[in-house]
Amino acid sequence: MKHGIATVSLSGMLREKLQAAAAAHFDGVEIFENDLLQYPGTPREVRRLCEDLGLAIDMFQPFRDFDGNSAAQVKRNLERAARKFDVMEELGTSLILVCSNVQPDALSDPALLAEQFAQLAELAGQRGMRVAYEALAWGSKVKLWSQAWDVVQRVKHPSLGLALDSFHTLSLRDDPGGIAQLPGDKIFFVQLADAPWVNTDVLTHSRHYRCFPGQGEFDVTGFTKAALDAGYTGPLSLEIFNDEFRSAPARSNAVDAKRSLLWLEEQIRLARTPATPSYKVALFDPPPPPAFSGWGFVEFAADPAAAVRLGAWLASVGFARIGQHKSKKVDLYGQGEVRIVLNLEEDSVARAHFEMHGTSACAMAIATTDTAAAFARAEALLCPRVAGRLGQGELSIPAVRAPDGSLLYFCDAPEGGRHRFESDFVMDTTALASVAASTTIDHVVQAVPGGQVEPWVLFYRAILGLSAQRNIVLHDPYGVIRSREIESADRAMRVSVTNSDRDNTSVSRAVSRFRGGGVQQIALAVADIVATARHLKSLGAPLLPIAENYYDDLQAKFDIAPELLAAMREHGILYDQEPGGAEFFQLYVVPFDDRFHFEFTQRRGGYAGYGAPNAPFRLAAMALLREREAAAST
Amino acid sequence: MKHGIATVSLSGMLREKLQAAAAAHFDGVEIFENDLLQYPGTPREVRRLCEDLGLAIDMFQPFRDFDGNSAAQVKRNLERAARKFDVMEELGTSLILVCSNVQPDALSDPALLAEQFAQLAELAGQRGMRVAYEALAWGSKVKLWSQAWDVVQRVKHPSLGLALDSFHTLSLRDDPGGIAQLPGDKIFFVQLADAPWVNTDVLTHSRHYRCFPGQGEFDVTGFTKAALDAGYTGPLSLEIFNDEFRSAPARSNAVDAKRSLLWLEEQIRLARTPATPSYKVALFDPPPPPAFSGWGFVEFAADPAAAVRLGAWLASVGFARIGQHKSKKVDLYGQGEVRIVLNLEEDSVARAHFEMHGTSACAMAIATTDTAAAFARAEALLCPRVAGRLGQGELSIPAVRAPDGSLLYFCDAPEGGRHRFESDFVMDTTALASVAASTTIDHVVQAVPGGQVEPWVLFYRAILGLSAQRNIVLHDPYGVIRSREIESADRAMRVSVTNSDRDNTSVSRAVSRFRGGGVQQIALAVADIVATARHLKSLGAPLLPIAENYYDDLQAKFDIAPELLAAMREHGILYDQEPGGAEFFQLYVVPFDDRFHFEFTQRRGGYAGYGAPNAPFRLAAMALLREREAAAST
Repeated sequence: MKHGIATVSLSGMLREKLQAAAAAHFDGVEIFENDLLQYPGTPREVRRLCEDLGLAIDMFQPFRDFDGNSAAQVKRNLERAARKFDVMEELGTSLILVCSNVQPDALSDPALLAEQFAQLAELAGQRGMRVAYEALAWGSKVKLWSQAWDVVQRVKHPSLGLALDSFHTLSLRDDPGGIAQLPGDKIFFVQLADAPWVNTDVLTHSRHYRCFPGQGEFDVTGFTKAALDAGYTGPLSLEIFNDEFRSAPARSNAVDAKRSLLWLEEQIRLARTPATPSYKVALFDPPPPPAFSGWGFVEFAADPAAAVRLGAWLASVGFARIGQHKSKKVDLYGQGEVRIVLNLEEDSVARAHFEMHGTSACAMAIATTDTAAAFARAEALLCPRVAGRLGQGELSIPAVRAPDGSLLYFCDAPEGGRHRFESDFVMDTTALASVAASTTIDHVVQAVPGGQVEPWVLFYRAILGLSAQRNIVLHDPYGVIRSREIESADRAMRVSVTNSDRDNTSVSRAVSRFRGGGVQQIALAVADIVATARHLKSLGAPLLPIAENYYDDLQAKFDIAPELLAAMREHGILYDQEPGGAEFFQLYVVPFDDRFHFEFTQRRGGYAGYGAPNAPFRLAAMALLREREAAAST
Repeated sequence: MKHGIATVSLSGMLREKLQAAAAAHFDGVEIFENDLLQYPGTPREVRRLCEDLGLAIDMFQPFRDFDGNSAAQVKRNLERAARKFDVMEELGTSLILVCSNVQPDALSDPALLAEQFAQLAELAGQRGMRVAYEALAWGSKVKLWSQAWDVVQRVKHPSLGLALDSFHTLSLRDDPGGIAQLPGDKIFFVQLADAPWVNTDVLTHSRHYRCFPGQGEFDVTGFTKAALDAGYTGPLSLEIFNDEFRSAPARSNAVDAKRSLLWLEEQIRLARTPATPSYKVALFDPPPPPAFSGWGFVEFAADPAAAVRLGAWLASVGFARIGQHKSKKVDLYGQGEVRIVLNLEEDSVARAHFEMHGTSACAMAIATTDTAAAFARAEALLCPRVAGRLGQGELSIPAVRAPDGSLLYFCDAPEGGRHRFESDFVMDTTALASVAASTTIDHVVQAVPGGQVEPWVLFYRAILGLSAQRNIVLHDPYGVIRSREIESADRAMRVSVTNSDRDNTSVSRAVSRFRGGGVQQIALAVADIVATARHLKSLGAPLLPIAENYYDDLQAKFDIAPELLAAMREHGILYDQEPGGAEFFQLYVVPFDDRFHFEFTQRRGGYAGYGAPNAPFRLAAMALLREREAAAST
């Protein structure tokens, strides 16, 4: 299908918006009027610019408050429309979006509206133009697509059709089903936006919270499928008003936009049934999302000095050095089934990551049964491929670049507790600590800069087929942190993306000090949290101290066996219980360089969450340590 | 009256919260349970810490979901309460807040609730404790203060009373009037919070948008007066959950908190009528807000090199150098009645401001009829006084420090077009350009960092008696800007406070590059915008170019006389019209050092606003210039 994007969806001035849309291989754009009014050149120059960039101008928008007025005002509005047709002629576009009147005193009689639109359609037809009528969700009288359709149907003019917008229909929880029965050629244009469900009025919802399909919670797939079922063959065009996107870099945002439409096409293809009419347009058909067969490894970039400290820290939290790469300065650490790669290679992607972000996770690998298909899907969904250098006989692990520039590898599923990539290493697994034998990665927490939550959500959803839970709010002593959990259907793969737009929280500190954040926490699932705590203590692990008062409260709130509570108190183990009685135990270590850390978790009875009620205590304990260190160093 | 604050209202760890409350001269605190649970010391140590700081612990809070449960659950809850009474005993406080149950299946029969609270009250009484029952606005059954009162009245136990919270009552638009008829001794505690009206659910409203009285839009005065009318004599205690405050520095935030309660007491005093019962507590009684008699001057800090460029720029936009300070390196510029002070004095507050913030406005002076009273009011409302050095025979102008560290002077009203402070200068006003003779300051725009909008609103409201309009959203090409207009009742004094939490907007650039923002725009009211434009052009003023397309749209939208429209197009004059036909003309100059600029405005027919619809065009024009300069310099 053809893909379009409204210029209002991208940040910056018109020229850079157009350049970004072209670079992301969009076929066309909707010119948002304010972008044109700000442009220091004529509409004709904008037309030439678009032609040079290979972009069609699909539509000019919006034309407001045309309908439902007095005859005198409609006459004025027709004059105003004539002026806009002049502009459109220069722009070289023939379609204008007219949105339903929002004035409180607008008239609503469909016969009157039809009469007024007939005049507009006639004027448009004389000029070779077409009018797409859109019901705004907050229109004062016309709010639903079916109301706009009623008017279009009455007018029966070839120059008047419908503009549909997923936001307007879905935000009102209106049923898009009937759209499938419309004559396809009367749907002049389809605009798409997703959004999270937020408790606010529909106008605020629209102006600030729209996002690309796949980033929100609306059924954009069902909406778009209805338009295609009707026979619509025009562009799918994104119209997004979003506070984050208004400041996001236009280039990367345009790539996200394009990815969202590819993903959407696939979803529509998958939603088709034998009863679905055949389409005249082809839908994107990439390999399916990979089956998650566990984590392969998490790779950290370091220089030799940092690596010595990091290696000692890893040893103190239960990791053993179990491998030495055959041809590179790369070490492999293990704990149970978990693998940490320490990359010291000088001329490498890892080193570049280190120079930019300091000691930090530069790559993650997930295991899957068909790595080639996973890689092909990621590439088809616009992830840049990354090729590393290979020694002779060494394994080539396909990798793509994730939204923050780190790498995502697709590696083979482990067999008999052995990963295939271990063949590149001289291995010695005798040091793997027996007590932690069942350790696996429970989840990974990534700290991301403002505006990067949605891109990550779409990345995980589109590339890996994960689904995103709702935003939750956590309280750091120095401000609010927002966290979104992204999981595979079987919850085998869990990632939490956190962001904070406050200055001094643990998340924003990581983001600003290290130019981008990245992996902040790796949670390791263990079978026996108390035994793990004892083992870690014997290794000299820097366990995070939790305040005594916390345990007095646990005692008041829950029935916890006294010996267990005593052990939790002794080791700083946090506790949560879900309504059904499922339990969660959490043990933290003091972060490495105030940057990333491990959590050890034990789930009992199918606990589904991430221990959010304990976040304030864990974050306060970390803040307290930071302050003590700062005080000690002055 | 006694003043209290809940520890949750302030940022940081418990110790710094308490220290901040004490430094701002609060009498007591409410200990928020999570703050205690995070504290690495015993409740007894917290008690000692408060004693050392001279703070009472007014209340321990909250105790959740006690009521409306099964008998078995109530038994468990009573055990939980007994544990909390242990903690309170150690803390040395006897009052606990119990808030209404939020569980969906909570029971609501008042007789049952009364029976359960009777048990709790009895237990509390045995321990020398008291229970304050609060109706949460989002309680599943008990939402209103009158419902909680119904239960308290049924129980009739000396250890059970009411906790009132302005937020819970006002956010539901429930009537607080009946509170005045309650027996005052059954109101155990009064919590206060203001909030803006936002379109969201009441829980989200409470968790993220509460603010100090005077910063929002609720009638906190009426609510609090009702409690005092009832005979309440306990502390007024602030309980604020606010995303900004969670990251605001605790010390300055605590001073704002205290200021808000002083202001509130004054408002209650002013709201009293002969029918109001007499109070046993005295209310704060400062001098009244000053009558605004015009702007005195705006003072800029510069070093000699910057002053040369700034002086030339001022000349190009119509200012004449009209005075030279008799004893200091200070120049006076004038245009009509507007005065700009350029302070180059080396050992001065201005120089300190320059070193921190660069060339920028370091002070503003407003003229008023009783400067001593204005100054006394500001001091009583916790503004630090600032004393400058004075030459012999020179005028002493009282000044206080504003929220961003700049100065606010109170100077005498001008007489016969002459300011008294001009007597400190060797004056030569012959150069005052005649064409701009009627120029005055229309409004001033200040760019402020995140979290500083509310402090400024309270400052202007409390110190100067201004009132704040609603937040409006403006679109910079690189992100959203929020703006709040603050005005005197007669609109003679207008200030707009703008903030942006995005990286690359004009506001956030000013804030981050210059460590704090400050005055970004001074709008000068002129009688004839076109004549002004011609005059400025003749002076070589760098007028901001506006895109041609903007004028084509004006022509389509409005009936503007062709000659006027041509002149507007020629000079880059922006235009807006209010529904009643009132008109607004705006002309901008290119900012000095991309930092601050002048706007020239002409209001016709009582136009009330600030030209918000034109903001995107003005901001885009400025961004375009910035980009061209950046491109030219590379």
